[in-house]
Amino acid sequence: MTAARPTDRRPALVESGVSTRVRVAIIGGGIIGLACAWQLLRSGCNVTVLDPDVAGGATHAAAGMITPSSEATFGQEPLLAASTASASRWPSFAAALAADSGLPVDLRRAGTLFLAADHDDEQVLARQARLLERHHRAVERLPGRATRRLEPALSPRLAGSLLIADESSVDPRQVARALRVAIARRGGEVLSAPARPLVRDGRSIGVERLEERGAAGHAGSAGHIGQVGTTGADVTVMAAGWATTALAAGLGITVPIRPLKGQVLRLRPSAPDVLRHIVRACVHGRFVYLVPRPGGEIVVGATSEDVGPDSTVTAGAVHDLLHDAIELVPELSEAALVESITGLRPATPDNLPIVGATGIDGLVVAAGHGRDGILLAPLTAAAVVSHVLGSAPPEQADAFTPERFAVKERA
Amino acid sequence: MTAARPTDRRPALVESGVSTRVRVAIIGGGIIGLACAWQLLRSGCNVTVLDPDVAGGATHAAAGMITPSSEATFGQEPLLAASTASASRWPSFAAALAADSGLPVDLRRAGTLFLAADHDDEQVLARQARLLERHHRAVERLPGRATRRLEPALSPRLAGSLLIADESSVDPRQVARALRVAIARRGGEVLSAPARPLVRDGRSIGVERLEERGAAGHAGSAGHIGQVGTTGADVTVMAAGWATTALAAGLGITVPIRPLKGQVLRLRPSAPDVLRHIVRACVHGRFVYLVPRPGGEIVVGATSEDVGPDSTVTAGAVHDLLHDAIELVPELSEAALVESITGLRPATPDNLPIVGATGIDGLVVAAGHGRDGILLAPLTAAAVVSHVLGSAPPEQADAFTPERFAVKERA
Repeated sequence: MTAARPTDRRPALVESGVSTRVRVAIIGGGIIGLACAWQLLRSGCNVTVLDPDVAGGATHAAAGMITPSSEATFGQEPLLAASTASASRWPSFAAALAADSGLPVDLRRAGTLFLAADHDDEQVLARQARLLERHHRAVERLPGRATRRLEPALSPRLAGSLLIADESSVDPRQVARALRVAIARRGGEVLSAPARPLVRDGRSIGVERLEERGAAGHAGSAGHIGQVGTTGADVTVMAAGWATTALAAGLGITVPIRPLKGQVLRLRPSAPDVLRHIVRACVHGRFVYLVPRPGGEIVVGATSEDVGPDSTVTAGAVHDLLHDAIELVPELSEAALVESITGLRPATPDNLPIVGATGIDGLVVAAGHGRDGILLAPLTAAAVVSHVLGSAPPEQADAFTPERFAVKERA
Repeated sequence: MTAARPTDRRPALVESGVSTRVRVAIIGGGIIGLACAWQLLRSGCNVTVLDPDVAGGATHAAAGMITPSSEATFGQEPLLAASTASASRWPSFAAALAADSGLPVDLRRAGTLFLAADHDDEQVLARQARLLERHHRAVERLPGRATRRLEPALSPRLAGSLLIADESSVDPRQVARALRVAIARRGGEVLSAPARPLVRDGRSIGVERLEERGAAGHAGSAGHIGQVGTTGADVTVMAAGWATTALAAGLGITVPIRPLKGQVLRLRPSAPDVLRHIVRACVHGRFVYLVPRPGGEIVVGATSEDVGPDSTVTAGAVHDLLHDAIELVPELSEAALVESITGLRPATPDNLPIVGATGIDGLVVAAGHGRDGILLAPLTAAAVVSHVLGSAPPEQADAFTPERFAVKERA
């Protein structure tokens, strides 16, 4: 296959000068699909989103951290640049979404404390600090006592921390709710249905809506998937997380995304505001995060398991997450465990998402955001608007090009 | 108040020679209320059970161990005698229930392994062995290797075990299902409604059915409880667990039962039959049990928290239960955590249930079974049939008499 450059083409109806609005079908109603839908509606498109489990999946499980510095790693500079650009878009994205939906979109800007539990963990912190200093990021090293002045609930046995003051978080479920309302208010349609792209004569002409697997009843049949209708579209966006790989493969396109299992807990302390900051830590070599929510709940995550599409919540993972959370914040022992959940992150071989034209006219992909779907949603949505309407996408999204995985044709 | 001796009176209709069946109302549809209902139906009574949450509460959370020897403690000889008598009734109880309901009632008779994790825990085991030997119970001390030959999934680091071969378990949810079907087949009625005893002129005449708390809507009102009807009965049995205390107090009767919180997990290993025996253990001073279910699930319990009627599943308790379960059976780390639940055991000051006449004519109590509700159900049901029909109750239930808590009247 070949991948067309994004600027190679404009949607057919724009090219032919017809004044009707560009019709876009989006397969996938997670944070990426919904954010793209909303921004496309704001740009004047007609939009239909199709997903059998809208706002479910990885979006429902996500912690919602807008933390490009905390997540920076050596050798991932393009991701750091994109993450930083997308994080800087979040305040206006959240404000516009709140205005459009009439619902709250709380961007908590309390910053991140990156903790070390012991001396070995401190080496991990020091390495992160050096990386961030090299990239001129705001980062402050704090001893244990200063750390506890910022967060009195933290264990007195902590070795020290990094304070990354300019990081923030959102509640992905709150964001998804606001997106759905904003989409509806702007005339967009969200269908609870599985779908796949419909390609004819080498051009995407919309989507086939499919029967839901198992919708034929609970009789135990494996569930034949039949077509129940089509939705015509000038441009189709595949934004189905790790399921995008199969959608693309059906069209001969390589989009290498695999599910990366993450188990996440939700704790409800009896006291409000046990934590103010996002707390990330390395506890005896194991990474854990605690993300406070406006209502006082704390999201604790996450495992990272390369085990295929398995949604099992396991005893060992829950044990380890609880162990580390209680070690960092002892009073969480008394907190209610209100949820144990698995998300399947859409992971790519190089940890960058896959966003752009596919080589099939009218077919765009926006998937593979790994652990960064919430963080990268504003940048991705802006890029997708450009790919759909034929304008120049933000350059920080250049590294997202699907071309990097295109199988080279022989000369 | 005074408490009448059980044999002081017979139900009014029997006394007066009327040939109609004795009508019994049972407040509480947990294992005790349902078992009493079924046995009363088999004895020819008309029975109505009333409970807003039939087969919920402590019954739903219970592990279902029929383990009088494992639970024996020094100074609790009357409980040991009653438990042993009730355990010996379980095989015929289960067989008759299966026949009556047409549903399976699996009595697993694989026995109990009582494990020690370290040397200190071994002292606890040795003490238990001495207690059981004194009472001539079947008990065998096994070294670590012999223990693992019986249960290969156990950790190789175990110090040793006691094998108590004559113990068994049931699935309380399966038993409750069978009881409900058996009750229906014999013409009994189970109403999903709260109720309280109706006493007139010093005699119980049935129950008042009450509006469900909060049934007025989700408007946030505290929920006034009004009467919605009455059900006449010759005898009323209060079998409402720890809620019996309030029912009795409304009539001036002292029935001291408090909720004793127990948190319980349910694990589903991917391999079947990870364990055959009930496994009980003292892990570094903390008690834990693992009860295998026919389908392969394992119930892990339980905390014992004297914190009032609090149903919160807490992070610390789940952590500790998972920690101990995985320490005993390392492969449970990979098992699915399918349920975290709280039960409120109905505990009495002397750990014996409260079963018998109340001092109000026609009002019987059967509650306060603590951690032993499943175990003691057959004996309790037999005792209640005697109290209702005026025959002599089984002598092993003598210690259950409500009289021991009766406030002495002045001479």
